[in-house]
Amino acid sequence: MRPLLMLAFVEALSGKKAGDFLNQAVALEIYHNSTLLHDDVMDNSDIRHGKPTVHKKWSVPAAILSGDAMISYASLLMTKGLSDVAAVKVARLFLESQLKVDEGQQLDMDFELRNDVNLNEYEQMILLKTGALFSCASGIGCILAYNGQFPDDKVLKLSLKFGYLFGLVFQLQDDLLDTYGDEKIFGKPVGKDILNDKKTWLSISLLNSNKRTRYVELMASKTQGAEKIEAVKALYDSLELKQKLEKEIDSRLYELSQLTAELEQYMVAGGAELIGNYVESIAGREK
Amino acid sequence: MRPLLMLAFVEALSGKKAGDFLNQAVALEIYHNSTLLHDDVMDNSDIRHGKPTVHKKWSVPAAILSGDAMISYASLLMTKGLSDVAAVKVARLFLESQLKVDEGQQLDMDFELRNDVNLNEYEQMILLKTGALFSCASGIGCILAYNGQFPDDKVLKLSLKFGYLFGLVFQLQDDLLDTYGDEKIFGKPVGKDILNDKKTWLSISLLNSNKRTRYVELMASKTQGAEKIEAVKALYDSLELKQKLEKEIDSRLYELSQLTAELEQYMVAGGAELIGNYVESIAGREK
Repeated sequence: MRPLLMLAFVEALSGKKAGDFLNQAVALEIYHNSTLLHDDVMDNSDIRHGKPTVHKKWSVPAAILSGDAMISYASLLMTKGLSDVAAVKVARLFLESQLKVDEGQQLDMDFELRNDVNLNEYEQMILLKTGALFSCASGIGCILAYNGQFPDDKVLKLSLKFGYLFGLVFQLQDDLLDTYGDEKIFGKPVGKDILNDKKTWLSISLLNSNKRTRYVELMASKTQGAEKIEAVKALYDSLELKQKLEKEIDSRLYELSQLTAELEQYMVAGGAELIGNYVESIAGREK
Repeated sequence: MRPLLMLAFVEALSGKKAGDFLNQAVALEIYHNSTLLHDDVMDNSDIRHGKPTVHKKWSVPAAILSGDAMISYASLLMTKGLSDVAAVKVARLFLESQLKVDEGQQLDMDFELRNDVNLNEYEQMILLKTGALFSCASGIGCILAYNGQFPDDKVLKLSLKFGYLFGLVFQLQDDLLDTYGDEKIFGKPVGKDILNDKKTWLSISLLNSNKRTRYVELMASKTQGAEKIEAVKALYDSLELKQKLEKEIDSRLYELSQLTAELEQYMVAGGAELIGNYVESIAGREK
């Protein structure tokens, strides 16, 4: 998804084709996958995308060291084939974004130990953990489109903002579908967040409501499996959280369309449609 | 040690002072420390430089994630304050070197499970695990000295070679002192390599000698502590391995002085002496 966002931005802003920037697209994906390898060690997860995780199949040292090599290799590949002026801008943005992703991951782990997280803190965490790499993708797309020489400062700022917002929408969508999605379309079992007491937009809203005590009791009780999923969903439903989250996502999608309209002055013909299609293909809610 | 080598090369080749490149010096050291954090997790080591390791004091996730952030931050800091042409050259060399360090670490772990490693393989592993980052240090020193614009290709090649060779000398010296050093000067307990059955120049030479069987039996026996150290040292001594390793180090130090002489044509007045003093201060054997 991140490489596609990057390539959509290159093409929308310059008409240049994806094939010229496959190194950069692959670099983004390799870096993203390095974070998955290390996250799986940190969370002690056995399964990723339906297959054994790297540290389960091979070993913890193999997962740590492969992840390290992927971080360095991704950063190296990111500069490949670019002019010096573009390479430096792209590398710095990529490396700054990596630091933000790490910061977001630390906050996410901190939040697991807290029951007083509010929606504002949650959004800040998502903007770092998920948004930063999407923002990096659209930002690098912009740098590549102009070969590092921008017509003005605004086009890079807007491009970076687009990715942050898109990352947020993507995560909120994931929070919604994990509980309310159609398993066949979502591609993973629904209710996993509830079973793992994960901090999501839904559970944080519940913790900050007058149903908090009921929810905390439920988490501490022996209720498990389908029964737990149904009980927590009943609490969500009593507060109409599904509808509220859908409204939140719709409002963010509207912001994204406004941002696209602001960016259109910089785009080639058909550019705004390309970006709109990208958003629709990834974030378009099941209807 | 790596930052000092880098700064010695900058000054020897250009007369520029250390203060102009502290970001680059710190970046090298931060990256090196990231490998220590992750190595300690992989080796499950409790103590580093006499203090609890990061994963012991905090947690495994903290050590993994801090290491990741240090890798990204080091690469970002490495380009700070440089012209685009120097920044790109420095960043690429740094990232390529990181990959070599990872490759060397994997080989080192592979070697632990093997009893048929020969000295040639061992040297190749050291050149990657230790040599690559010293080579990166002297190579980056050269790039910074010329601000990325070299008078010819040879000066960078010689600078890179110097660091590799210096890293090898440094590791051989460490192998020697771990068994034969004076604890007060060496700064860590002697005999640790023997107690941990570590692959070193000495133990690999023993494994490739006619005393191999005796050594393998000793490793499999219950002999531990000071008794084990003395027994293995007796085997080393019967083959005069201490003298042979000292001879090997002397021959490498001679190669280093030859390399310095070749580099002297590029150096400012006093440059060769500066490099010679650096080698002496780090690698000068206790006498």
